[in-house]
Amino acid sequence: MILVLKSGTSSDQLEELCVWLRRFGVQTNPIIGSEMSVVGLVGDTSVIDIDQVRQHEIVERVMKVQEPYKRANRRFHPDDTIVEVGGVAIGGPDIVLIAGPCSVESEEQIAGIARQVQSSGAKLLRGGAFKPRSSPYAFQGLKAEGLLYLSHAREQTGLPLVSEITNVSQIEMFEAYVDIFQVGTRNMQNFELLKQLGQTRKPVLLKRGFMNTIDELLMSAEYIMSGGNDKVILCERGIRTFETATRNTLDVSAVPVLKRRSHLPVIVDPSHAAGDAWLVDPLSKAAIAAGADGLIIEVHNDPSRALSDGQQSLTPAAFDALVPELRRVAEAVGRRI
Amino acid sequence: MILVLKSGTSSDQLEELCVWLRRFGVQTNPIIGSEMSVVGLVGDTSVIDIDQVRQHEIVERVMKVQEPYKRANRRFHPDDTIVEVGGVAIGGPDIVLIAGPCSVESEEQIAGIARQVQSSGAKLLRGGAFKPRSSPYAFQGLKAEGLLYLSHAREQTGLPLVSEITNVSQIEMFEAYVDIFQVGTRNMQNFELLKQLGQTRKPVLLKRGFMNTIDELLMSAEYIMSGGNDKVILCERGIRTFETATRNTLDVSAVPVLKRRSHLPVIVDPSHAAGDAWLVDPLSKAAIAAGADGLIIEVHNDPSRALSDGQQSLTPAAFDALVPELRRVAEAVGRRI
Amino acid sequence: MILVLKSGTSSDQLEELCVWLRRFGVQTNPIIGSEMSVVGLVGDTSVIDIDQVRQHEIVERVMKVQEPYKRANRRFHPDDTIVEVGGVAIGGPDIVLIAGPCSVESEEQIAGIARQVQSSGAKLLRGGAFKPRSSPYAFQGLKAEGLLYLSHAREQTGLPLVSEITNVSQIEMFEAYVDIFQVGTRNMQNFELLKQLGQTRKPVLLKRGFMNTIDELLMSAEYIMSGGNDKVILCERGIRTFETATRNTLDVSAVPVLKRRSHLPVIVDPSHAAGDAWLVDPLSKAAIAAGADGLIIEVHNDPSRALSDGQQSLTPAAFDALVPELRRVAEAVGRRI
Amino acid sequence: MILVLKSGTSSDQLEELCVWLRRFGVQTNPIIGSEMSVVGLVGDTSVIDIDQVRQHEIVERVMKVQEPYKRANRRFHPDDTIVEVGGVAIGGPDIVLIAGPCSVESEEQIAGIARQVQSSGAKLLRGGAFKPRSSPYAFQGLKAEGLLYLSHAREQTGLPLVSEITNVSQIEMFEAYVDIFQVGTRNMQNFELLKQLGQTRKPVLLKRGFMNTIDELLMSAEYIMSGGNDKVILCERGIRTFETATRNTLDVSAVPVLKRRSHLPVIVDPSHAAGDAWLVDPLSKAAIAAGADGLIIEVHNDPSRALSDGQQSLTPAAFDALVPELRRVAEAVGRRI
Repeated sequence: MILVLKSGTSSDQLEELCVWLRRFGVQTNPIIGSEMSVVGLVGDTSVIDIDQVRQHEIVERVMKVQEPYKRANRRFHPDDTIVEVGGVAIGGPDIVLIAGPCSVESEEQIAGIARQVQSSGAKLLRGGAFKPRSSPYAFQGLKAEGLLYLSHAREQTGLPLVSEITNVSQIEMFEAYVDIFQVGTRNMQNFELLKQLGQTRKPVLLKRGFMNTIDELLMSAEYIMSGGNDKVILCERGIRTFETATRNTLDVSAVPVLKRRSHLPVIVDPSHAAGDAWLVDPLSKAAIAAGADGLIIEVHNDPSRALSDGQQSLTPAAFDALVPELRRVAEAVGRRI
Repeated sequence: MILVLKSGTSSDQLEELCVWLRRFGVQTNPIIGSEMSVVGLVGDTSVIDIDQVRQHEIVERVMKVQEPYKRANRRFHPDDTIVEVGGVAIGGPDIVLIAGPCSVESEEQIAGIARQVQSSGAKLLRGGAFKPRSSPYAFQGLKAEGLLYLSHAREQTGLPLVSEITNVSQIEMFEAYVDIFQVGTRNMQNFELLKQLGQTRKPVLLKRGFMNTIDELLMSAEYIMSGGNDKVILCERGIRTFETATRNTLDVSAVPVLKRRSHLPVIVDPSHAAGDAWLVDPLSKAAIAAGADGLIIEVHNDPSRALSDGQQSLTPAAFDALVPELRRVAEAVGRRI
Repeated sequence: MILVLKSGTSSDQLEELCVWLRRFGVQTNPIIGSEMSVVGLVGDTSVIDIDQVRQHEIVERVMKVQEPYKRANRRFHPDDTIVEVGGVAIGGPDIVLIAGPCSVESEEQIAGIARQVQSSGAKLLRGGAFKPRSSPYAFQGLKAEGLLYLSHAREQTGLPLVSEITNVSQIEMFEAYVDIFQVGTRNMQNFELLKQLGQTRKPVLLKRGFMNTIDELLMSAEYIMSGGNDKVILCERGIRTFETATRNTLDVSAVPVLKRRSHLPVIVDPSHAAGDAWLVDPLSKAAIAAGADGLIIEVHNDPSRALSDGQQSLTPAAFDALVPELRRVAEAVGRRI
Repeated sequence: MILVLKSGTSSDQLEELCVWLRRFGVQTNPIIGSEMSVVGLVGDTSVIDIDQVRQHEIVERVMKVQEPYKRANRRFHPDDTIVEVGGVAIGGPDIVLIAGPCSVESEEQIAGIARQVQSSGAKLLRGGAFKPRSSPYAFQGLKAEGLLYLSHAREQTGLPLVSEITNVSQIEMFEAYVDIFQVGTRNMQNFELLKQLGQTRKPVLLKRGFMNTIDELLMSAEYIMSGGNDKVILCERGIRTFETATRNTLDVSAVPVLKRRSHLPVIVDPSHAAGDAWLVDPLSKAAIAAGADGLIIEVHNDPSRALSDGQQSLTPAAFDALVPELRRVAEAVGRRI
């Protein structure tokens, strides 16, 4: 951490600042310039509250040198983390496909889709039971009933389940039914939820907030990991920009950047990034080419009658046709599907 | 609502679409062009799930003509809503000042600040007890103890209280202690929380998500109002843009746009928008000049030792000096403080 | 084009508006609703100045149905455009690699790099002679001398040349030395320059402005094409977003969107998008997987001593190692390098 | 300037780097940490090409402490710069109003508007002769004829003229007719134009690019000033964000930030920021309240028939009604109109 001091700082004030900082167990290295002075901090600066330092009367600016996340940081954990769930390894040499509908709509629907995506090559089943919708008048999901139908689909296929949790109060129910907690884009900074998920032992698929930086995503992973749950899967799903041609802008660079900064697995959601089914094909291929460890793709038996997100869902047939093409790209970059 | 049809649509397909749409109780007006055709919908289109229409096989694009919010919409409620709390009217001719520290730190601290900001002209007291922090290692608030200290400060001053709620499980506690629920920027789309607050009878100060549009803010207000609670106060607090010179970019245009689209009171938080105490002065004046109904300003007895957000907090003395200047701007635009 | 009318519009006003609009040769189809009315326009609406319509006293809003670009539009030109230059076809089945340094620094430097990138598989040589730099104190390029050295490199290798033009006054010089005019990101809306390039007969590599939408890029292509020059190559090079982990955010979705909306070839510049050499590998692969027709990559003999953009430049050896990997991805999506 | 070094850097490499850096006349202060090391540079670092340092093999990151602009920097020029033109002082205690149509359309039109805005209180006349339009099919301005009509309007009223220049080739013509060169948002980084304007002696009104940061605006001012022309007026005119309710988002915070970082006058263009006439009133007031030195407002005799930007233009009557209201806000913040 580098502190840039205000001009006109006296050497007494500087000394006082350094004494205060050393209480946090860090070394202080002042650099005195004619026009500007700085103090470099060496040691574990993650214990220092950066806000508190920033507001010190002689500090003009604080520049972070080290990342504020520890457990999620590859610097302290050089090997890739592999998250295992129901015999599926996420983050290893195989690229994992997660597929299923935006919302669970009926027992038959989810069971049917589960069988179809499994035969095409999906290794996990996704399906929403609690739906965060921007309009209070839109379909809000089947809730507990949806989780039940998902679990029946798992019984029939053996596919582990991923479903989105939207509130702390649902944790117990999800622990009973679901294999991976999904934290949605609007809850990436729902810190109460993150803290509670840190107390559980099931993996968490953490989606990037559509207006959150890569480092904020890693800090949210840190929230979960600091509670003791290291099984976090990061998910890039598009960010909000000025461009309106696509629902969101897939930040494909986030894949290699996350893989470099962190040891956690990184998957991509091309369906939400694009907002349009025809874009799922090129974006899925781009994600794999850029190094993603998996994809989470919306597949619906009848997109034009889906209760949510039909526009971006593939039919089972389209998914089945896509998988061999994805496999070719995966093999071109030394991976398998 | 206007539906743009895909090219090559047959008249049978068009007729089938219109029959389906009329089931929602709307009239359908097709316009057939040589290169492109559209269908105009007339009537109450808020009952139609736009996602479902969008994914219809012959629909290329959906363009909304009417706003999707009803209860928050000035079109159906031309008069200004005035939210009254503890004898203070928010949204009337008087501009209301809400002041207090980012976090409640001790009983003495909050009581002292309460007395000072009251004597300067503040009509409500703010103070955080549950703090959503982006780092798990930062101070997380005094929690229930903080609410208790706030309520003691109210006993001494009579100032109604505003405090941020971060989880559904806190509602009961907040109803006992606090006068206005504050929903923070990261929870603007925590729909579970919004729905529950719609069941309460206390006013809700709803902050705009730093990543959310004006219309999304109004849809979140609609969530609360559709539950039966009409006492919503909207708050602009800066959005995330590419500019890094300020913590966020205050979207001052949001004030007149919100006042035009909605009948709800609109206040501004210059402290979070700026991220720096020296900017609170010009941004507060700009907000009033643009038509804001109030300001929520962070004031801390000792900013350089604040446990959170000290950099953007005014001292009580600075707040005291600012109020008469704000009063002059308010009077210049025909308001009072 | 759909015009949404202000509420309270009389039928006389509506009729008057329609009469006025029909003068532009379009048909007018009014839809009268109880709360809102619209007019749908059918025909060639590209001749209508949308600004003029928008400000009509009874018009509340204008919604575009058709794209405002004609010559660049795939709707009117379904087949892919292939731009040929010096025996190289851009936009055909082969993915074209363009490589070279950010700035031409000396005759030996550019000649050496040209030979090296050619032997690795590059089909065109890039090199900057006129450099638009954000600081007036930074190296501004060798100017005419740079173009001369580039042309010597072409004599030795046969590689056609791409170089950035920054002002109308340079056109004649570029026509003498260069094979493809490059319009840089900061000049995408330098309409004077676009108009003049429309009068030339050499291809134009048009980079997307880092602040411009996909449709604005197509409108800038339209500027060049409306002057009579159809040989436009579009280039995605990253946009400015709130994310700061990469210099820009590569909008990889722009590749399929541009290919769908337009018949023009689309290439990607991974070097400027990333701002960091190590990211060129994953982003190049992602671009090819998403359907790009080519890549323009910065290669420098000694990046740590480059006079500009060294941080994002590959060494010739790194480029040579990358090409076979790109070839594998190209083949996986049915293309060749 | 602070250089963060890559981990694993040897002391020999560090020494070599420091020797190289000292050649630029700066002192080097290394701070060696167990996990990370940095080098602090003291002295005039503006002579160092930051790109060159960034790409040094042992440098991981460069953090700027000092601003890269000198002449535009208040640190080296504490007093406000006042730009005088035709007896009008911009940047002094009086807030200056600049008004006129987006485009000059005829001799009578511009003369009429000039007389009207003058009688309302405008001190300068604006009018576009060369119009940068995003569509090649839209009205492009009267060009030289427009400048001639502007100069006739000046003869009749004495109002100094502001008009937008779009190309270096127009400089001579503008020097003959116009009092202030306006550089538009799309040309803020047209460095060729900025360099040439640095050679002239007339003031330059430099608009912020809609996707450019405050520091980039100051660097563009530096381009002009480093050529010897210190008469630069900065103009905030709205930036591009994710919000679509307004054409652009007025960054009102830019006003105090620019006034603090630079000594140059700062004005605001509420018309382009809003894109809608009704928003000009609140945004103008907000700009003045935030400390702007002037406003540039579009006024058109018949907005509904304007050839460009009619939607955002005030009528002369609306402008006349607005000025006394702006005067009240100006007086409330200790200024005059």
